[in-house]
Amino acid sequence: MGRTSDAREKILTTARRLIELNGYSALGVAEICKAAGVPKGSFYYFFESKEALVRAVIDEEWTEERDGWKVILGGDGAPLERLRRLFEATAAEQRAGKQSCGTVSGCMFGNLTLELSNRTEPIRVRLQEIFDAQVGMVRSVVEEARERGEVTVADSTAAARAVVAQIEGQVLFAKLYNDTQGLDTMWLNCLALLGARPPERAAAV
Amino acid sequence: MGRTSDAREKILTTARRLIELNGYSALGVAEICKAAGVPKGSFYYFFESKEALVRAVIDEEWTEERDGWKVILGGDGAPLERLRRLFEATAAEQRAGKQSCGTVSGCMFGNLTLELSNRTEPIRVRLQEIFDAQVGMVRSVVEEARERGEVTVADSTAAARAVVAQIEGQVLFAKLYNDTQGLDTMWLNCLALLGARPPERAAAV
Repeated sequence: MGRTSDAREKILTTARRLIELNGYSALGVAEICKAAGVPKGSFYYFFESKEALVRAVIDEEWTEERDGWKVILGGDGAPLERLRRLFEATAAEQRAGKQSCGTVSGCMFGNLTLELSNRTEPIRVRLQEIFDAQVGMVRSVVEEARERGEVTVADSTAAARAVVAQIEGQVLFAKLYNDTQGLDTMWLNCLALLGARPPERAAAV
Repeated sequence: MGRTSDAREKILTTARRLIELNGYSALGVAEICKAAGVPKGSFYYFFESKEALVRAVIDEEWTEERDGWKVILGGDGAPLERLRRLFEATAAEQRAGKQSCGTVSGCMFGNLTLELSNRTEPIRVRLQEIFDAQVGMVRSVVEEARERGEVTVADSTAAARAVVAQIEGQVLFAKLYNDTQGLDTMWLNCLALLGARPPERAAAV
């Protein structure tokens, strides 16, 4: 029992790393098993297909990320301060990824959206749920800030979606140029999108 | 001579459609040849590899898109008016794609960036050149608008990059939800990113 659940974890960890590096289509079950050091029979004991494995990888990644977002956005401080911390954590994660493996791997959900959403309906639906949840979490903070008169958006859902879209677009550039420097501008862009203009903006942008 | 160049065009057109639908990794040379109705020997007469084909597809797509951007951004009217037309054309293209094949296929350059940029250096370099060119074209218009006092950005390159990032992020959402409606908010987000606030903004956002 201990050995089999260990094999499942090995497959998941290996698949997550390979998906981050190469995406979904380039991934083969034989390659995963070889890299994870588990027999192919184990793979099909735990996962009925490569697609099922990818769904499990997505779920694991989102559970971790969502917990991180909850801690940051539900923490102490003014709403915009918490939102700023989320941007810093996002940039820090991409920088850490680059430091550990030499390449910016980007956002797994964005990567899989562009690669897979038109091909695999269950994965599209799951990715929709994840981005819906992200937009919902940002929207709550934006609404809090609006109640305090700190932002000037009329449609908080559209504003939250623009903020998440800006993150995805800037992370795409970080991956393309293998350079995380541009991520530092994300927060000022977010403030502009929300119609918030703290004193430092005029000097920095 | 007429027949061979016809075969090259068939391969390119077919590959472009298949890449838009399924991405790069899922694409096989045999599949392209079958769908294009050309023998496999023809493929290797024109393209030394699948990667060489994809580079040709990217170049063809960018030549068309760049010409369109030049006409729109170099046309008549105030700079922000020309930029608005670029956003409208981008949304219209995604809507037309959905009408013709039922799915929003997104931006080929964004799709290939997230799928390939960490795996194929020549393609990464080409995609960097394309996004550099896009950002440069937007920057010129932003600088024109700044000279007229219509926007308030200090760093026109960072601002142009934020605008292109917003387009990529919103097109990602359009693909994920297979719904182009969100693209209508892009222009107002662009104005916010540029610190431009025409009268209609307060009513519409």
